[in-house]
Amino acid sequence: MISYIFFDIDDCLFPSTEFSNLARKNAIRAMIRLGLEHDEEKLNKLLAKIIDEKGSNFPNHFDLLLKKLKVKTPRRYVAAAVAAYHDTKASILPYPEVPYVILSLREKGAKIFVASDGLAVKQWDKLIRMGIAIFFDGVFVSESLKVSKDKADFYRKIIKEVKAKPEECLMVGDREDKDILPAKKVGMKTFRVFRGKYAENPKKTSADYSGNDLRKIVKMVKNISH
Amino acid sequence: MISYIFFDIDDCLFPSTEFSNLARKNAIRAMIRLGLEHDEEKLNKLLAKIIDEKGSNFPNHFDLLLKKLKVKTPRRYVAAAVAAYHDTKASILPYPEVPYVILSLREKGAKIFVASDGLAVKQWDKLIRMGIAIFFDGVFVSESLKVSKDKADFYRKIIKEVKAKPEECLMVGDREDKDILPAKKVGMKTFRVFRGKYAENPKKTSADYSGNDLRKIVKMVKNISH
Repeated sequence: MISYIFFDIDDCLFPSTEFSNLARKNAIRAMIRLGLEHDEEKLNKLLAKIIDEKGSNFPNHFDLLLKKLKVKTPRRYVAAAVAAYHDTKASILPYPEVPYVILSLREKGAKIFVASDGLAVKQWDKLIRMGIAIFFDGVFVSESLKVSKDKADFYRKIIKEVKAKPEECLMVGDREDKDILPAKKVGMKTFRVFRGKYAENPKKTSADYSGNDLRKIVKMVKNISH
Repeated sequence: MISYIFFDIDDCLFPSTEFSNLARKNAIRAMIRLGLEHDEEKLNKLLAKIIDEKGSNFPNHFDLLLKKLKVKTPRRYVAAAVAAYHDTKASILPYPEVPYVILSLREKGAKIFVASDGLAVKQWDKLIRMGIAIFFDGVFVSESLKVSKDKADFYRKIIKEVKAKPEECLMVGDREDKDILPAKKVGMKTFRVFRGKYAENPKKTSADYSGNDLRKIVKMVKNISH
């Protein structure tokens, strides 16, 4: 019986790819609004190239952008870009069915966790921004478990932490490589959601369950008496 | 004739002491909202003590607070506190007369700058949040000038940077020690505004001009033809 449910966050609980693109667009517009004399389209392309080269976690995208443009007074534009970027990131909303699904799972007695890459504080921040942090019993991240999420050991560790049996656990995520395959390997149940940039990569899934949103999960979980 | 006007930011252009206090209060309430089982008043006092001991620029006030309370799952509360703190800081508004005063000075042909402690990007961020960044020709901070603001050299350097004569420059600020005395020493004109936590410390000023707000400055500046 499923009693412990682990959710990936990005492109699973909220459209993170969409929000990242919007945040970058808003950052560029904020720099133009403050007087940066370059074409919006040109700036979009240059920023995309920098992110492509440096990776999305590189902390100085905008500094590098302004350096490449040989802007003499970059501080004001960096401040404008970072402010607009963070404002967009602070306004994230969950996929529409998410609050109802999570509340229903809690009402049935399930324990709800996050299992994701990245830093715990950043993932809690996303839950808080979405207004759903109150429902979560904990956040497990690769950084503090010291094992990457595409390894079966990641899932072995979190099962041990919550003191569950693998078959009582359901892992929910959008990525076959990080969410489905390694969780399945340790005997957890798995649910693949087809959305975000990995929606069709790969198209087929080895998950036990799947869907275009998370609604089905409510029916999969029976009432649990503790 | 006054043609170059330098403004301090904190407690000069916006009530920074008030906003810092509000940001801390909102941070504590956000932690309680997420389930932290401690009394609000007790948390306020403990945080004040930590800030007092570690200084306001120490980056881990909330981590330390939760450690002192022996909270076992601190990540969620740190995320909540930091989010609420930043949201409050992002909502800063200038003192009511500020936008009109600065616009009027620009219309008269004056060049407008910030002269402050801290990091340039952080100061630009404040100007952007207040909606007045567009009026400023530049930001000078002690960090990039590599001299602290209570030294006459700080003011010597910024006068040189803008290629002005000392008597063409007006320094506006709330602090006798950092804004008035060293600027006066190099021959700049000075304006002390009596507000914020240094409003009465000291009560008397050696500044050439003073007031409870910045309105008088508009009349002090004549139309400048470039």
